[in-house]
Parts: sequence; C-alpha cells; structure tokens
Amino acid sequence: MSSTANDGLLVGLREIADVGRDAQRGGYSRHLWQSADLELREWFAERATALGLDVETDRNGNLWAWWGEPGDDALVTGSHLDSVPGGGPFDGPLGIETAFQAVERLRQRGVVPRRPVAVVAFAEEEGSRFGVACLGSQLMTGAISPERVRALRDADGVTFADAARRVGFDTAHLGRDPEALARIGVFLELHVEQGRGLIDLGAPVAIASRILAHGRWTLTFRGQGNHAGATLMSDRDDPMIAAARAVLEVREAALAIPGSRATVGRLLAVPGGSNVIASSVSLTLDARAASDEETRALVASIADRVAASEFVENSWSPEVHFDQALASRLTDAIGDVPVLPSGAGHDAGVLSPAVPTAMIFVRNPTGVSHAPEEYAELDDCLAGVAALESVVGSMIA
Amino acid sequence: MSSTANDGLLVGLREIADVGRDAQRGGYSRHLWQSADLELREWFAERATALGLDVETDRNGNLWAWWGEPGDDALVTGSHLDSVPGGGPFDGPLGIETAFQAVERLRQRGVVPRRPVAVVAFAEEEGSRFGVACLGSQLMTGAISPERVRALRDADGVTFADAARRVGFDTAHLGRDPEALARIGVFLELHVEQGRGLIDLGAPVAIASRILAHGRWTLTFRGQGNHAGATLMSDRDDPMIAAARAVLEVREAALAIPGSRATVGRLLAVPGGSNVIASSVSLTLDARAASDEETRALVASIADRVAASEFVENSWSPEVHFDQALASRLTDAIGDVPVLPSGAGHDAGVLSPAVPTAMIFVRNPTGVSHAPEEYAELDDCLAGVAALESVVGSMIA
Repeated sequence: MSSTANDGLLVGLREIADVGRDAQRGGYSRHLWQSADLELREWFAERATALGLDVETDRNGNLWAWWGEPGDDALVTGSHLDSVPGGGPFDGPLGIETAFQAVERLRQRGVVPRRPVAVVAFAEEEGSRFGVACLGSQLMTGAISPERVRALRDADGVTFADAARRVGFDTAHLGRDPEALARIGVFLELHVEQGRGLIDLGAPVAIASRILAHGRWTLTFRGQGNHAGATLMSDRDDPMIAAARAVLEVREAALAIPGSRATVGRLLAVPGGSNVIASSVSLTLDARAASDEETRALVASIADRVAASEFVENSWSPEVHFDQALASRLTDAIGDVPVLPSGAGHDAGVLSPAVPTAMIFVRNPTGVSHAPEEYAELDDCLAGVAALESVVGSMIA
Repeated sequence: MSSTANDGLLVGLREIADVGRDAQRGGYSRHLWQSADLELREWFAERATALGLDVETDRNGNLWAWWGEPGDDALVTGSHLDSVPGGGPFDGPLGIETAFQAVERLRQRGVVPRRPVAVVAFAEEEGSRFGVACLGSQLMTGAISPERVRALRDADGVTFADAARRVGFDTAHLGRDPEALARIGVFLELHVEQGRGLIDLGAPVAIASRILAHGRWTLTFRGQGNHAGATLMSDRDDPMIAAARAVLEVREAALAIPGSRATVGRLLAVPGGSNVIASSVSLTLDARAASDEETRALVASIADRVAASEFVENSWSPEVHFDQALASRLTDAIGDVPVLPSGAGHDAGVLSPAVPTAMIFVRNPTGVSHAPEEYAELDDCLAGVAALESVVGSMIA
C-alpha cells in the first residue's frame, strides 16, 4: 500500500500499516506470537492506555482494554489483530480501531458509562498459525479443550505450548474462563464485509443476521512414490491425480448445493520432489452452507465423490443466528440498515451461544477479503465508527 | 530399514545406512551441503583413504579418489551421494560403493593399472536442494553457467553461493573445468535400475543404450485470492481449479504419446491458507520422451491444453546415446547382458557429449525408485561389482 493509500486509513490502522507486511504474498501475515503479533499487542496496549483504558491479558491470550472498572454486564466490543497469510489490513484490526474511536468520541462527549465497557482483541481468530480458527474465544468459552490447543503444531512443528513459552506466556491456566465470560453483558463485533452484499445494496454498513455453518477438513490420498522419468504411465499409482480430481469434485459438489461454498486452499505433495511421483498428497477442505444439515450434506457428497485414504475433520462450527432483540436495539440506534448473512466465521459466532451478540459490517468496495486487495473507504470506516458510537452510547447511558 | 535389511547391504552402504534418514517421508533426504551430505563426503574420503586412494575435491564440489597419480586418459567410475527427498539407499551411493569394491578387488588381485583410475562422486545430481539436476557434472562440462548456479536458491531462500560459504566451500572458481575434464578417458556409471526392465528380463545387470530427453518446467496459474467462506462460487477466480485441471491434462498429454512420461510432483498454492481461495498456484512439470522432438511435442501439447499464466523452462536435457564402441567393450568384458534405455537422467548423460560414457544397471526388484521402497538384492549388487571389476580390469590392463 502506498503512503497515499495509508492516508485514507483510520489513524490507528495507519499506525500499524507497516507491521507484519508480507513481501512475498503481498498484504499482511500476522500470526499468533510471532513478531508482528507481538508488535500489534504493544500497539493495542499503547492505544488503549492513551485513551485512558486499563489493559489486561486474560489466561487465553486475549487482550482487554477497560473503560471503567472491569465488572459484570459489561458492553464488550472488538475483534482480532491476527491475519490470514497475505491478508488485508482491515479483517480484524478495523473492529478494534473503530471500537477505540467510538470510546474516544463518547469520552470526549462527556458520557459516563453506567456499565463497564471493554475493547477486546481475541487471539488467533484466523487459525493461520495453528490451524484452528477462533482459538482465543473458543478457549474462553470452553468450545475447545486446553489439552488439544497446547498440542496443536504450526507449520514448523512448534507446539502452541512451546510457542507460548517462547514469548513468556504461561499456558498452565489455558481453558474455559467463567469469570471473563460472566463479565460480558453483550458482545458487538464490527468487521469489514467479506463479500459483495453492501456493494450491491449501495450502503456503507449492515447488521449481521447469521453465520453459515462451516468447518475444515484434511483429505489425504495415498499412492506409490516412484521415479518420474523411469516409471511408465501405465505402471503409476500417482496420488496427485486423485487429489486433482478431488479439487474439481469439491467445486462440483458446492455448485450442486446453491449458496454453499467449498474451497481447497492448500495442497501438499509428499515427498514433493519435482522428479518424483508423490507417495501421498494431502489437501485442505473448507466447506460452508446455510444450515448445519446442508453443510454436512455438502461434506458427505464430497466424501462420496472422492476416494480419499483419510478424511479428517479439523473443526466444525454450527450455524449461528445472532440475537434478535440485540439486532433490534442496533437498528433503533443506527437506523434501518441492511441485514446480511456472513459466510465467514467470527469470534462473535463463537460467543453467540453464551451471550447476546451482534455484528456490524463495513462495505468492502473490492468484495475481496483474505487477500491484499481487501479494502474499505475511509468514509465507510467512519460510518462504522459512528454506528458503533451510537449503539454503544445507547446501551451504556 | 531394519538391521536385518542392513545386513543385506554392501559393506559401504551399511556404513552410511543411518546417514540422512528422513523420519517424516521415510527413506533418505541427503541434500548438498546439509549435514547428511557432509557426513557422506567424510565417509567417501575415509573409505577411499582406507583403500589407498588419494582424495581431492574439484572446484565444483565433486569428489575424486585416485588410484595412481591423477593424469590423462583416466578410467573414471562413480555416481553421486545425494538423494531426492525421501529417496532410497541405492540411487547414487550404489555406483560409488561398487566402484570402491571393484578397485579393492583389482588391487587385491595385484593388478597394476596402466592408466589412472578414479572413483568420482558428483555433487547435487538430483537437484533436490537447488532445483537443477546434475549440478556438479553440468558445472564441470560448462553445461550451466557458474553465475546462474551461484544465484540458485533452496526452499529456504538460501543461495547456492551462501550455502557453499557456510560450509567453507569457495565458489569463486566454480564453472567449466577443462583440466578435470581432460583427464577423463572414459566414464562408467553403475546405477540401480529405476524401472522394471530387469525384473521382466530376469537378469541381474544390464548396459544402458540411451537416456530419454527430459526437462523440468514450472507452471503458474493466477487468479483472485479471496475469502473461502464469503465468496460465492459464481464470484470466484480460483487458480486451484485451473491447476487441478492442468494436473489431469499433463497425464492425458503423456498418455497420448506412447512411451512418454509427464509428472506433477509438487504444487504450491499462494497464500496457502485453508480458509483462503488461492491467488496463485504453481506446479512443477517433469516431462520425458524418447527423442528431443517427442519431448518438445509433449510439452507443447501440455502448453496447449492448459492455460498457464506462466510456463517457465528450468532445465532441458537432450536425448543421450551412449558410446557404441564402449558398450561393445563392456559386452566383451561382462558377457551378453541386456541393453536398456534409461528414463532417468544421470551424470553419465551430462558427460556423454564430452567423453565416451557407459552405464551399468543393477536390478531393482520393487521397480520403485526415488522412494523408500527402492531396493537391490545383495547378490545383484555383487553381480554389479563383478561386472565393474571385469570392465575396469579389461580397460586398465
């Protein structure tokens, strides 16, 4: 992004515009407890402190910035700081920076909150380092066991526990955090839209209705590794062929269920030599559809269509319907904005079964997310700040 | 491999049976100037010294063990020590160990060579670290420029020049080596067969007639990176789909030209997140056929069938016909053994335009190579030693 483009960013996003840039992929690679993530955590603390908020890290690595004493029935808003590999600047940080700005405006207006307010940054929302999304919120709510998380490994084979230890974070108290959870009265997450809904509607912000059911699987195909030059085509058992067919079948299966989505974003051949027929190929499957049943049907259809040696579920997130009463209060505060479903998972979805939860989306004029082209106009981001200010203001007065 | 299996190895192969084992892939990963390669180089020097040979490293990183004074019209035999990722124990080292044993037997018989004899180990034959095969022999013959080689990068981005420097090897004098080349009167390479020819013929050893023309290409497909959950199937430009189709087209193209082979052994999606539609996918193509023309036609057919954004040639090795007169001398020495073509490239193929060159193959009862399942029975290896002893003996008397 050029400095001219940076000029169009909210001030906080401009401050972190150089943190975690990915020269190879473009965009940003900001992953849990790597240097970019540590810098972003410092930025969070400094930005919060400058606004007069009190910062704490909970036992699952999530950051909290409190306006007023931490306590029950808090209005909590925020998102995450981490990114996918080569992601855009808005997915995550926009929800945190708009929260800071909304708090700043309310304080400047002399508002004295009648309930605690917190800005939160959940850890490893994208799951890009350890393969499981929404780790911080899932740990807090008990949706994933601390034993499983400690043993997760990154691409270099480093466990979550070791990675935490290296940056001085103690994983002994990882896991369900009833105190942290009990303090949350409502949770609001503002997020850049990941799709074209607001482009088509010509509106700057929307409220979320629901999140598609989704999950991640790993498919493995086994064959016989052999010499690429000496092995006749007729003598081959090349798993790359089965894997390539599977990539195409995954697409066909999703096309057969309207509204569903299925993606192979990564494929690994073992041993991976250019002059070697692979002995095994594994690939990731991301599958989503409107309901739990449809998503399960999509995955079952894929399993039928491909002859995988292994088909392992890495994560499963049921369909989420956000709180209707809370959505009405948002509409009361910010007016009659569009209501859109989300194809993307969010920490708000993880919290939704535990506390009343709502989301606000900000228009993304490229319609692209999880890529460097992700974008949001400054005016639309400011509309997001104004919406958050109205909602938070109406709920803490 | 169990210790029982090791008992069936030639003594020298048993000595290096634990060097460079690959716990993840199985088999061996022995790549230039990594620790396994350095250990194998030490083993070469110790084994040669114990046999009374004088060891030297040439300016391209190839190892030479001389029986008698180095000099012109030498009979040179050997192969390479490096492996593909997860390769077998025979591809390369068998040609070196059988050469040592043949020299040992001749010396024990009191043979005094009338010409210099050398055992050679060429560097980075597989090209597994820096992507270009037969680096040591290509540098020596001037088939590749030292500037290009110095700038080659491994998967971690380390250049050849830096990798060399780290192990104390000076690349200032890299490149065509007329003195080393001028000393070679003939070159013999014994190699485990990479195919099923000798299984079908029921014979332990064969002589090579020729090497198929072959080369390596990188194909890149570009699309639009985006969010795997939020992007409708109809809004996608997913390069993984084009890459998967290409994998299948590569196979179809090879099936359409009898005897030809084409392989995709590696595929890389960028950015490679499981919840991200890739922005680009690159894959390796290894293509081989009987003649240069057929191989070029195969690659042209693949280029027609796939719509690659980029189609880059990384290496090209023309068809090789080994020296007919030398092949006759081999037959005279070891009897009327089968004559087979090689689908695999070899340092012998690189040397063939410069000096009279021949190859001996040893039966591989699995027919599998470039994989842990590669094998050779001890009796067949000993038949290889005997063949080499006869040939070398007849040519130095």
